[in-house]
Amino acid sequence: MPISSAQLDAALAHADAHMGDSLERLRDLVAIKSISTDPAYAAECQRAADWIVAELKSEGFDAAARPTPGHPVVVAHAPKIAGPRAIFYAHYDVQPVDPLNLWNTDPFTLTEQTQPDGTVHLLGRGTSDDKGQLLTFVEACRAWKATAGALPINVTLCLEGEEESGGKNLPPFMAANKAELAADVALICDTDLQDRQTPSITVGLRGLVGEEIEITAANKDLHSGMYGNAARNPNQVLAEIIASLRNPDGSVALAGFYDDVKEVDPATKASQESLGFDGAAFLKDIGLSIPAGEQNRTVLEQTTVRPTCEINGMIGGYTGDGFKTVIPAKASAKISFRLVADMDPDKIRAAFRAHVRARVPADCSVTFTEHGGSPAVSVSATGKFLAPARAALADEWGHQASLRSGGGSIPIAGDFKKILGLDPLLIGFALPDDRIHSPNEKYDLRSFQKGIRSWIRILASFAE
Amino acid sequence: MPISSAQLDAALAHADAHMGDSLERLRDLVAIKSISTDPAYAAECQRAADWIVAELKSEGFDAAARPTPGHPVVVAHAPKIAGPRAIFYAHYDVQPVDPLNLWNTDPFTLTEQTQPDGTVHLLGRGTSDDKGQLLTFVEACRAWKATAGALPINVTLCLEGEEESGGKNLPPFMAANKAELAADVALICDTDLQDRQTPSITVGLRGLVGEEIEITAANKDLHSGMYGNAARNPNQVLAEIIASLRNPDGSVALAGFYDDVKEVDPATKASQESLGFDGAAFLKDIGLSIPAGEQNRTVLEQTTVRPTCEINGMIGGYTGDGFKTVIPAKASAKISFRLVADMDPDKIRAAFRAHVRARVPADCSVTFTEHGGSPAVSVSATGKFLAPARAALADEWGHQASLRSGGGSIPIAGDFKKILGLDPLLIGFALPDDRIHSPNEKYDLRSFQKGIRSWIRILASFAE
Repeated sequence: MPISSAQLDAALAHADAHMGDSLERLRDLVAIKSISTDPAYAAECQRAADWIVAELKSEGFDAAARPTPGHPVVVAHAPKIAGPRAIFYAHYDVQPVDPLNLWNTDPFTLTEQTQPDGTVHLLGRGTSDDKGQLLTFVEACRAWKATAGALPINVTLCLEGEEESGGKNLPPFMAANKAELAADVALICDTDLQDRQTPSITVGLRGLVGEEIEITAANKDLHSGMYGNAARNPNQVLAEIIASLRNPDGSVALAGFYDDVKEVDPATKASQESLGFDGAAFLKDIGLSIPAGEQNRTVLEQTTVRPTCEINGMIGGYTGDGFKTVIPAKASAKISFRLVADMDPDKIRAAFRAHVRARVPADCSVTFTEHGGSPAVSVSATGKFLAPARAALADEWGHQASLRSGGGSIPIAGDFKKILGLDPLLIGFALPDDRIHSPNEKYDLRSFQKGIRSWIRILASFAE
Repeated sequence: MPISSAQLDAALAHADAHMGDSLERLRDLVAIKSISTDPAYAAECQRAADWIVAELKSEGFDAAARPTPGHPVVVAHAPKIAGPRAIFYAHYDVQPVDPLNLWNTDPFTLTEQTQPDGTVHLLGRGTSDDKGQLLTFVEACRAWKATAGALPINVTLCLEGEEESGGKNLPPFMAANKAELAADVALICDTDLQDRQTPSITVGLRGLVGEEIEITAANKDLHSGMYGNAARNPNQVLAEIIASLRNPDGSVALAGFYDDVKEVDPATKASQESLGFDGAAFLKDIGLSIPAGEQNRTVLEQTTVRPTCEINGMIGGYTGDGFKTVIPAKASAKISFRLVADMDPDKIRAAFRAHVRARVPADCSVTFTEHGGSPAVSVSATGKFLAPARAALADEWGHQASLRSGGGSIPIAGDFKKILGLDPLLIGFALPDDRIHSPNEKYDLRSFQKGIRSWIRILASFAE
């Protein structure tokens, strides 16, 4: 049944009036150290899932933390009513917090900090990625329940605990529970606003291939004075391999890397360019000025519609204080590729491994460890839920929501499409300066509050 | 006064009969965690110095741990007698022990382990480098004192606590105490045997230039999905710099690096080659088969008379368990150069820094930290103490001592020459498989025992 504007206003007013309570709940959730990639924090991941289940039960959901071979998936169903069905996805796990010494506040203590321009930052690991975003939807549901006694449409939540650690267990869980998770639209809240004033619906996402390589040379660490020159140094081998991954023009040097990369169609390209993205300002904000990718591409293209290769970590030898004249036995690196539409993760992984193997000296060896792989996703811009969601966002923000391609990878978006047959709507309220995955992560209080209000409106817009 | 063979035999017999006590003293010294490079172990370095002072006092030396701006220098004088004066150098500090999980025994607990071939290993950090070697001389003095009541010649010990951490404070200490440290010959015990049967006197040593570089790109860690491609990755920049340090033919690619490198004279080269060094076996022992240095040079040349550049450590980004899609703000490396005769450390350091600066993108920055610098040293083969020492070693080992060039760097050898005007005799009993600077460092019991006996004979050989 369609929602009246009085009902909508009541829900919005309730959310505003109870912002303090919403923030307390975010504080509770941030305090749980649900770092999914580190086995030492497994109990904390379970605790985060249990905390969310308790919250959702208090809102009348039929909720449970469902076991997987890894961390639990939280599944919750609102009481069944007439009308369309939405399934909402976010993740309750967070990235590690190292290097801890670079945090200005405790990462697990939500800290409000008013900026010189009046903006209020909510500091803490996961405030932006993705606990704050997750709660915008949960709090929107709470406002509807409190004011209307029920949600405007059928809602199922599917909340993951392994997004930051490969997310291997959710797709089989979805496949095994296809009937239970059936819906008409998927809502994913793990993306950015276009800017502080402009909401955004992400219609394209880059894919990801993660690889770890370890080069082994000698059978033990060596003294560089005694063995230096004659004994192969795995640091040198690794550095040469890494250096070989990029051409001088900034392009990625893997054989066939660009074979399946298509140019963006002119209409989409024009739409993207009309957003007025300022590449120089984007770089300036992070202290840089020279785009590092393909020389004939803009910063916007480099970060959204062009594939890349990044060295996310590398280590070898003595890295403590002082100096040690060692030639290590091993050196290793974590390397990721961002893929655009039509690139095949398996093909890229194979090309990478062949490239590396061809550069490992015959008396050295290399081992590869896979860290996830997913193709790029593009979302249909014609689904029946896109227009009302866009209108609801415009009502809240006073600006038309941009339709854009994101540079990050949300593999689960592809899984919603592939496994559940749903077009996902990726709507989020984070900002590029939220320092996600870094020390001093923050979420704007405004993102949190208007995020809650946005979902209140979007749920209403889907009611028939 | 010349030493009679009965006196010599008595001293040797005493050393053999008291090997158990000598080992107990080595055990005590190894147990002191004198890691000089790590400020957390400063008190342990002082404790090691104090322990040695107490031992030397018990042997009748006038000994003291003398303060420096860093760790103390132990200086000890035997009661003055007629005859020549020798000054003995070794170091009581040790390398860090990480990675600790690769040690099979506690690094600070001396552990005796009999090998299948009957060889006994003395396992523990510093057993070979350099506590065991240091004690060979102290125990030799003890045997002379116990059997003859005095040493055959005048002896001063000068024992350093910063050899593994740059050794900056000893040269000024030597300069400030020139008169007190005056001698006719310097004895340095920090080198290897030729092989298990053959003693060696090192007459050439490579110099060392240590540098640490840190590349800074963005002003914070970035999410690689959001910024990847456009934002410069300092891991990539660092890897490209490291890769650029070597040419495909294995030579070092710094401008002018080989300008001052001279070919070894044919006589010395012939003498070196006559030692029957087996390059293939040398590499095979460490699990390798392809010499990594200049293609037209033998393994022996590469490791002794040719300069090199080694990446001793590098780190950037996320290196823990799992995966983190980060572009770090910084990446760093510890890099050392081994120099041969006539190469100027300052010139090489400047060439390195220019090479790096030319490769840092304009919107990134680099900082350099100096970790020591010393020229190569070559020892005169004509000094009056070389022949008797060589004869004494032959008496003990049954094989003529080789005169060789070592690949490592012992900057203090140059300082003995420069500051005190002494030709140093570098005589040591370590073996290439001692795993110095690595987990599971060991010293052969035979090295320890025959090392003590060698010094007993050498001291006698110098008596006039």
